[in-house]
Amino acid sequence: MALPSTPTVRTRVTREPQRAVYEREAAYRILDEGFICHVGFSLEGQPFVIPTSYGRAGDNLYLHGSVASRMLRAMKEGVPVCVTVTLVDGLVLARSVFNHSMNYRSVVVLGRAAAVEDSAEKTEALRALTEHIVPGRWAGARQPNERERKATLVMRVPITEFSAKVRTGPPIDDEEDYSFPTWAGVIPLEMVAQTPVPDPKLDRGVAAPSYVRKYSRRKT
Amino acid sequence: MALPSTPTVRTRVTREPQRAVYEREAAYRILDEGFICHVGFSLEGQPFVIPTSYGRAGDNLYLHGSVASRMLRAMKEGVPVCVTVTLVDGLVLARSVFNHSMNYRSVVVLGRAAAVEDSAEKTEALRALTEHIVPGRWAGARQPNERERKATLVMRVPITEFSAKVRTGPPIDDEEDYSFPTWAGVIPLEMVAQTPVPDPKLDRGVAAPSYVRKYSRRKT
Repeated sequence: MALPSTPTVRTRVTREPQRAVYEREAAYRILDEGFICHVGFSLEGQPFVIPTSYGRAGDNLYLHGSVASRMLRAMKEGVPVCVTVTLVDGLVLARSVFNHSMNYRSVVVLGRAAAVEDSAEKTEALRALTEHIVPGRWAGARQPNERERKATLVMRVPITEFSAKVRTGPPIDDEEDYSFPTWAGVIPLEMVAQTPVPDPKLDRGVAAPSYVRKYSRRKT
Repeated sequence: MALPSTPTVRTRVTREPQRAVYEREAAYRILDEGFICHVGFSLEGQPFVIPTSYGRAGDNLYLHGSVASRMLRAMKEGVPVCVTVTLVDGLVLARSVFNHSMNYRSVVVLGRAAAVEDSAEKTEALRALTEHIVPGRWAGARQPNERERKATLVMRVPITEFSAKVRTGPPIDDEEDYSFPTWAGVIPLEMVAQTPVPDPKLDRGVAAPSYVRKYSRRKT
């Protein structure tokens, strides 16, 4: 079992501190259910926030993309980054507009990224990225060749300085509002996979494998 | 019909430029389907990316939160911000790992935020935020009183400098990979509302209104 991290002044949750989670395992469960992160970095004083996929392997996040990517090139120069993963679980409808909220789980990782140069780690990172997004796909697809590996920049973001924030449960209203005549509760939201759509160029005889037909982000 | 915006050097899409969208209306459709944005801002050289809800009214995005929020206080000081909204539509499984992709729609807005001080605009912004997230709820809930309005900071982000990026459709493989023996296609993903969960403190006689029972982010 991993030890909880000690929040730094930068990752200590100041708003709604009762929602803060600093345990590494809890943060990893969130990171493993998500597959899209939002990466923040600054260029000439302007912050940019770019969505991209990621994978986790051990205590590292891996991001990848073209060697021409502005984001990855900035990250490669060692600028500070922030990687945020958010899972939205529901809309919380209180009696008062003021107490409306969201149920969510989010993780914020601060740090600097480094390009993965080692060939074995690069393969492992690409495998982790693929398996993180579609478990089973690495063995089911044509794996990267040398040309593709050279065209791909893989960045490692160590999960060192991080915090997570979680809200669950029903709305919490002010005592005098409980008699207000309206419905209150939670509308749960879930990212659900719909029926797979075969590539029009796919031979009709090729059936979708179980990792495609039963795709779900929910971890049991 | 709104005119397309002219991309600046900061918002011109450099990677996969064929996915770029600069039309205001197309960007607004994405902003109106989403309800969670990721806000980027820098403090002492460290970028932070924080998820929060938003509303759109005309050519402005509105964000809100506690007057004690670190993010909102930073925004209020006029630092440059980036507001990114991402809708994930599907996983794109190509024959080669290298050509795997996502179907998505995203909007990036750059600029500076300003606190909404005018009382009428503040009410309108809070209404827009509520209606953006749960259409019908503003009239169905107890609206903010003076104390709550004072405790709430509302920020306006003008949608001036922005770009959108969209990928749709099947995988695109290298010609020589089409014979690779695997399934290829798209796993569509959708944020779906599940059965509403009434607040345990709610009188059992109160039925969920139609805007709760039929909640959907999909715009028809």
